[in-house]
Amino acid sequence: MRIREVGPRDGLQNESVQLSVEEKLAWIHQLEEAGLSYIEVSSFVHPKWIPQLADADEVFKKLSRKPGIIYAALVPNERGLERALAAQVDEVSIFLSASEAHNQKNLNHSISETIASQERVIQKATEAGKSVRAYISTAFFCPYAGKTPITDVLKLIERFAKAGVREISIGDTVGQATPNHVEELFKRALAEVPARLLAFHPHDTRGTALANAYAAYMCGITAFDGATGGLGGCPYAPGAAGNVATEDLVYLFEGMNVATGINQEKLAQAATYIEAKVKRALPSHTLRTMPGEEVRG
Amino acid sequence: MRIREVGPRDGLQNESVQLSVEEKLAWIHQLEEAGLSYIEVSSFVHPKWIPQLADADEVFKKLSRKPGIIYAALVPNERGLERALAAQVDEVSIFLSASEAHNQKNLNHSISETIASQERVIQKATEAGKSVRAYISTAFFCPYAGKTPITDVLKLIERFAKAGVREISIGDTVGQATPNHVEELFKRALAEVPARLLAFHPHDTRGTALANAYAAYMCGITAFDGATGGLGGCPYAPGAAGNVATEDLVYLFEGMNVATGINQEKLAQAATYIEAKVKRALPSHTLRTMPGEEVRG
Repeated sequence: MRIREVGPRDGLQNESVQLSVEEKLAWIHQLEEAGLSYIEVSSFVHPKWIPQLADADEVFKKLSRKPGIIYAALVPNERGLERALAAQVDEVSIFLSASEAHNQKNLNHSISETIASQERVIQKATEAGKSVRAYISTAFFCPYAGKTPITDVLKLIERFAKAGVREISIGDTVGQATPNHVEELFKRALAEVPARLLAFHPHDTRGTALANAYAAYMCGITAFDGATGGLGGCPYAPGAAGNVATEDLVYLFEGMNVATGINQEKLAQAATYIEAKVKRALPSHTLRTMPGEEVRG
Repeated sequence: MRIREVGPRDGLQNESVQLSVEEKLAWIHQLEEAGLSYIEVSSFVHPKWIPQLADADEVFKKLSRKPGIIYAALVPNERGLERALAAQVDEVSIFLSASEAHNQKNLNHSISETIASQERVIQKATEAGKSVRAYISTAFFCPYAGKTPITDVLKLIERFAKAGVREISIGDTVGQATPNHVEELFKRALAEVPARLLAFHPHDTRGTALANAYAAYMCGITAFDGATGGLGGCPYAPGAAGNVATEDLVYLFEGMNVATGINQEKLAQAATYIEAKVKRALPSHTLRTMPGEEVRG
C-alpha cells in the first residue's frame, strides 16, 4: 500500500490562506515523521495562477530531504520543468483532464494540445533522470460534460504508459463517482496496464471517497492519493470536501490490516497542525474522533 | 433496497435542541414526500432519559399517516410497549448492545437480563399484531471493550430470529468498522439467517460509513439505516459524525443504479429543514454540494 500525500500542492493550491515557507517546511517535516514516503511538495506553475505556491523554489531549496522519501512537484509545461529540475525534485507530476470541456476551461488547451506538450515534458524529464507521474482528472465525471466515457480515460492511460510515466493517478475530481463506476474503470484499465502503473485519487465531496478507495483496492489498486486533513476543498463550492483526508485513507486500510507504514497518531498531529494554519475546520473524519468517546443509539 | 429513516428518533435523541411537535410533524411530512417508506418516529422511553422525545404520544396522535409507510417507535420495556400500542405504532423497535460493558453502562442491565425482558416485549407486540425490529449496537467495536467478537453478535441474531423479529439492524455504533470486518460479520450471519432479516446501521464517525455500506451490500444486505443530514452526532465527541446521512446513502446506491425509491432533491430539502432547526452544520456530504461546482486539482 502506497499513500501519496498531495496536501502541500493539491491541498494548499485550493486554500485561500498563504503559508510561510517555514510553516510549509514544518508541516512537511511532520509528514515525513508520520512515515509518508511520497510528498507532492509544490507546483512550478506561474505564480500568477497559484500565488499560494509561488515559493516552490525556496521550499525545495530549504527542504531537509530524508532518504527514501520522494519529493515531487507539479509542472505545467517545459518552463515549469526547468524550474523543477533546478530545484532538484525527485519526480515531476503533470496534469490533464479526461474531459475536453474541463481541460479547455482549466488549461486553456485541447486535450491533444496538452498531451503533445506533456510528451515533451516526459521526454525531457526522463532524459534528466527524473520519473514522471501523470494525473488524469475528471476521469469519472466532469462538472461541464457529465459522465466521462471510460474509453476516453483508457486512451489517455495507454498514451501515458507508452510515454514512460512511472504512475498514472486517476482522479474523481468532482467526487461524484460511486464504487461500481470505479470498479469498472479500473478493471478495464488493468486489462491494459499493470497495477503498479495506476493510482486512485478520490475526493470526498459526497462521502464516497473511502467506498471508492475500497472498490479500487478490491480491483488490485495499491496506490492512493490523499491530503492531510482533507485539505483542498473547492473554491467554488464552499464547505464541500476536496481531497480525501490522508488519515481517513490510512484508517480504512490499517483497519483492514493493510499496512501503510504510517503512524496514525503522528499523521493526526500533522493534520492538526495544518488545520490551525489554514484557520478552518477541515473535513477530515478521523481528526474529529476522540479516544473513549461514548455513544448512544 | 430499503432505506430506514431513523433521524426523528436516533437523530433527535442525540441533539440538544428541543423541536416542537409541529416541527417534527413538518419534517416527517417532508420525509414522506421524499419517498421514505420507513420512518422511526420517536421513542417511548421515559422522558427523564430523553426529554427531546417526551412528546412521542402527541407526535403519533397528530401524525397524518400515509398508506405504505411504516411508522415505528423504539420501546425500552413493557411499559414503553403499552404506550406504543396506545399510540398505534406500526412497528416497535428494541435495542441492546452486543458488548456486555456497553449494555451495562447504557441500559443498566446485563445482556441476558435485557434480552429476557425483550423476549416478553416481542411476544406481547406480536400478540398485539405488531412487528418488531431489533437493534444490536456496538456489533463491531465497543468504546469500553474494544472489538466485539462476531460470535457474540451471531448469538444475538439467532436469538432475535427465533423470537420472531421482522428485522435485525446491526450497528457500527462507534463508527470504527472497516469493510473487511463488515463483510466477515454479514457473511457469517447470512450463513445462519436470510438476508431479509438483516439491516446495516452504519455511523460515519471515521468516514467509513459508505465503504462499509458498500461492503454489506456486496454481501447481499439490502436494508440500511440513515438519518437525514447525518443527524445525531455524539454528545461526548463534539463534531463527530453520528448516523450516516440518509442522502449520502441514497447518493451511493442511486449512483450504483440501485433504486431506492427516494427523490434526492426532496430528501435534501428535508435535510436542509432539519439542519436549520437543530441550528448546527450537519455532517451530511451531499448537502454541501451544489450544482455546477467547479474544481481544480
